[in-house]
Amino acid sequence: MVIGRQAVIDAIHSGQQLDRIYMDAKVSGNQVNEIKKIALQSGIPVNYVPVAKLNGFNVTNHEGVVALLSKVKYYDLQEIISFTVEKGDVPLLLILDGITDIRNIGGIARTALCCGVHAIIIPDKGVGALNEDAILTSAGALERIPVCRVNSLMKAVDDLHLNGIKVFASEMTAEKNIFDCDFKEPVAIVMGSEEKGVYPALMKICDEKIKIPMKGGFESLNVSVATGIILYEVMKQRF
Amino acid sequence: MVIGRQAVIDAIHSGQQLDRIYMDAKVSGNQVNEIKKIALQSGIPVNYVPVAKLNGFNVTNHEGVVALLSKVKYYDLQEIISFTVEKGDVPLLLILDGITDIRNIGGIARTALCCGVHAIIIPDKGVGALNEDAILTSAGALERIPVCRVNSLMKAVDDLHLNGIKVFASEMTAEKNIFDCDFKEPVAIVMGSEEKGVYPALMKICDEKIKIPMKGGFESLNVSVATGIILYEVMKQRF
Repeated sequence: MVIGRQAVIDAIHSGQQLDRIYMDAKVSGNQVNEIKKIALQSGIPVNYVPVAKLNGFNVTNHEGVVALLSKVKYYDLQEIISFTVEKGDVPLLLILDGITDIRNIGGIARTALCCGVHAIIIPDKGVGALNEDAILTSAGALERIPVCRVNSLMKAVDDLHLNGIKVFASEMTAEKNIFDCDFKEPVAIVMGSEEKGVYPALMKICDEKIKIPMKGGFESLNVSVATGIILYEVMKQRF
Repeated sequence: MVIGRQAVIDAIHSGQQLDRIYMDAKVSGNQVNEIKKIALQSGIPVNYVPVAKLNGFNVTNHEGVVALLSKVKYYDLQEIISFTVEKGDVPLLLILDGITDIRNIGGIARTALCCGVHAIIIPDKGVGALNEDAILTSAGALERIPVCRVNSLMKAVDDLHLNGIKVFASEMTAEKNIFDCDFKEPVAIVMGSEEKGVYPALMKICDEKIKIPMKGGFESLNVSVATGIILYEVMKQRF
C-alpha cells in the first residue's frame, strides 16, 4: 500500500505499478487534483469511497488517499504492438470485455500464454483486482503474460485498427464459424461475458463477428473454455 | 434421502437412482450383506462411516444405512454405446480419471454437451457427488448428457475396446499432436487430473497418447479448457 497524498503522487511519477487508488469522496485540494489528473493519464483506476473504507485499512494519516500496489505489471498497448512487430511476430491480442470473475481471468491467462497471445487487454473499470488469487488461478501465467489495462476498450480497438490489426468479436449468434476465419493475419479477439456478451457499442466497431459451432441446441460454453477453443484455432492456423 | 435397511434395498430394486450409500462401518446382518451385494452390482458407491455421520443427517431409525438420491441419472455404458450405434452415430465418449473438482466436472459437461459427446464416464470412487452445485456449474448440462458411473475405468476401457472404440489418453508429454489424430472413427478420450494426469495402469491400456501442442514453454491448461480444445478438434473433423 502507498499511504497519503504526496506518497501516491510520488509513486505514480516514479512509475510504480498501482492496482487502484482509493480516495475519500469528500477530499479536495491541489494534491488531490494532481492525483486525479496523473492517475487518469497513467490508466490507474480511482475508486471514490466513504472515509470509513480508508480507515478500514488500519493505516494512520492516509489524508483521504490510499493506493494498492499492483501484483501484475501493466504494459502500454502501443509498446506491446510495436515490440511484437519489431521481433517479427504476427500480433495476437485478446480483449476481455465484462469478464469480472477472477477465476475465469486466471484460466484465460493460462490458455493465452500457452497459445502465444502477446497481451491481454482489460478495461480499468469493472474488473476485479488482479490480486494474488487471480495469479494463483492463473498458475502464475498472469505474471508472465503482458496485461494492458486501458481506459476505454473502444479506444483500444481504434488503436488496434490504426496498427492494421483485425478485430474479431465472439458472439454466439454470429454467422461466421471460427473454422472459416483467417487468423494468420494480425488479429485481436474480443471475448464478452457469458451473461451479456460483448458490449453493443464495442461490437459495432469490431470487424467481424465469429462463433464457435455447437451441436445439439445446447449453446453454453464457459467463457474460459470458449476462449481456449478460439485461441487454439488461431494457433493451429499459424503452426 | 432413503432411510433404513429395507428401504434402501427396495430403492435399489425398484431402480431408483442413488448417488451413494452411507453405512455404519459396524453394522452387519443379512440385509446389510444384501445391500452391499446389490449396491456393487448396480454401481452405487458405499461409504463406510462412523455412526455419528449418519446421526448427523437428523433422521430417526436409520438402522446404520442412509442413501442419498441422485440428482443425476446414471446410464449403463453398454446401453449408451448400443443406442448410439443403432441410431447411426459414431460414438464419442469422454472418460474423466481423477477429476474431482465439481466446478471442473460441471464445465466439462457443458462443453461435452456442446460437442455432441454421447456420454461422460466417471469412476464410482474419488469423484465428488454430482449434486446441485455440480448441476449449477454445468448450466444444467449434467441433467441432459448421459453419465455412466463405473466400478472400474480399466473395465470400462476394455468394454470400449470390445465395441471397437479407440481410446485416446491426453498426456502433456505425448508425441502425437491432437491435430494429427483421426477422430472420425469411434473414439473415447481420457482426461486425467491436472496434478497427476491419467493413472499409469489406465494409460497403459489406452490405444494412443495425445497432446495439445503449446507455445512458449508454459504448459499448463486448465483441464476443462484442455477438454474443450480436444473435443472441438473431434467435432471439427466430424463436421
